[in-house]
Amino acid sequence: MAKKTKKSTPAPLTFTEALRAAPGFDLRAVDTRSTPAFEGGKAAGQSLLGPLAARIADLQERLYAEAKEGADRSLLLVVQGMDTSGKGGIMRHVVGAMDPQGIHLTSFKAPSPQERKHPFLWRIRNALPAPGLIGVFDRSHYEDVLIVRVHDLVPRATWSRRYGQINAFEKRVVESGTPVVKVMLHISPDEQKARLGERLDRPDKHWKFNPADIDERLHWPAYMEAYQAAIDRCSTDLVPWFVVPADRKWYARLAVTQLVLAALEGMAPQWPAVSFDVEEQRRRLAES
Amino acid sequence: MAKKTKKSTPAPLTFTEALRAAPGFDLRAVDTRSTPAFEGGKAAGQSLLGPLAARIADLQERLYAEAKEGADRSLLLVVQGMDTSGKGGIMRHVVGAMDPQGIHLTSFKAPSPQERKHPFLWRIRNALPAPGLIGVFDRSHYEDVLIVRVHDLVPRATWSRRYGQINAFEKRVVESGTPVVKVMLHISPDEQKARLGERLDRPDKHWKFNPADIDERLHWPAYMEAYQAAIDRCSTDLVPWFVVPADRKWYARLAVTQLVLAALEGMAPQWPAVSFDVEEQRRRLAES
Repeated sequence: MAKKTKKSTPAPLTFTEALRAAPGFDLRAVDTRSTPAFEGGKAAGQSLLGPLAARIADLQERLYAEAKEGADRSLLLVVQGMDTSGKGGIMRHVVGAMDPQGIHLTSFKAPSPQERKHPFLWRIRNALPAPGLIGVFDRSHYEDVLIVRVHDLVPRATWSRRYGQINAFEKRVVESGTPVVKVMLHISPDEQKARLGERLDRPDKHWKFNPADIDERLHWPAYMEAYQAAIDRCSTDLVPWFVVPADRKWYARLAVTQLVLAALEGMAPQWPAVSFDVEEQRRRLAES
Repeated sequence: MAKKTKKSTPAPLTFTEALRAAPGFDLRAVDTRSTPAFEGGKAAGQSLLGPLAARIADLQERLYAEAKEGADRSLLLVVQGMDTSGKGGIMRHVVGAMDPQGIHLTSFKAPSPQERKHPFLWRIRNALPAPGLIGVFDRSHYEDVLIVRVHDLVPRATWSRRYGQINAFEKRVVESGTPVVKVMLHISPDEQKARLGERLDRPDKHWKFNPADIDERLHWPAYMEAYQAAIDRCSTDLVPWFVVPADRKWYARLAVTQLVLAALEGMAPQWPAVSFDVEEQRRRLAES
């Protein structure tokens, strides 16, 4: 038989493309066990992490190096998700794979009395990464339109203004040289039930369990509504939300790694030129 | 021939024992290429790091967990050493092997104008780890009796008082529940020459080179004298100095890992008891 003409297939979506919450995005339509932009299984996904971490390490060091010579850029990773969605695992395995010297990690808890005296973005602004660093937020300013909205911790008029304030704030952050990668780890309520159950079954996990987690769980639909609103209002062209199906922990880790890598590649940091004369310094060193 | 009676051989020294600077310790007598408490070579040393990191991870999580239930302990690792002695590598590979959520890393640079307005221990105290964390100092208050002494950046009467102030400070830190592991990475001047040369040879390392490093190098004997004085005066029973031969990077990383592990094992943190009724929570979860 004669050779068939090859049909051109469209290029597969990147993680960045597949996970981006575009206008009209519907959280309810996401299969939390799916693995967008990835065809392989767990073993294949895990085997990619090492090589991806090596590429991130190179870019992270370049970002750090260029700042040492005066550049003014950094990167910010924001991680949100329901209890047990795997935020801690992202910190341990994805952030933990990077050089700690180049990381500025902040875990946001309920605001302290001192923090409450300031506008909600005050503590967020104080935690932004210095030039050359990768900032990581474990929870973030989005809690101020999530738990705060679900429980009406401030008047509706107050939290409803915050979406616009967040957009304006994030725009300033990006324009000042800090791209923002905003991730929601999305699990199903059944997956949360299984994970909370594991915390109750294992004495070495008891400390991670809080009876209030079950109270919060009862507000699941209200939380999903609040996440949908945060995505509707704050997934902008400049700072889109990425919704990562997270029932499979290995996939969530792979996806966040890929999103961080893509953002760093987009920044394309370069080894800085230095101001000294290399030959002269070689001579001085030889004589020393 | 009849069997010989087995002679009892003394147990090999632990890293903690072999590296501790005891009274009378002489820095000049240290072979910076030696590998105290370790018989194997590079490959054997490197293959130990994974299993040791797993033991540290378990203890680190217990330390973090007990603090969440009210315990008030933390650990502090202080890393000192001449330029190129491998402090950055310890941060990347040893500290980087731990969970970043449980790490509070501070790199001390020349004090800022604001810091200069305060006593030298002010910024150190502010960087102490919160309960449950492992604090890491890349350089430390010892710079105030090292570079400051070598260059007489303050009057001699001032820096000579600091040894006693440091001992009193460290005693308070330990007694408040924070053991301190104090490490000097000890390289030879020839090894430094080779490492500075590599920074000049590789464009991706140029940013790490500073012509002032060669100026500092010319003060090597004065620095060794200052280190010897810091060890003589501040290697106490409560907070000894550990001098780690560091010409072999793999050995220095193994040694610091072992010292941290031994300190954590000495603390023996336990999974905390929790105050809720597990059965009751299981029931609530099932109904949720």
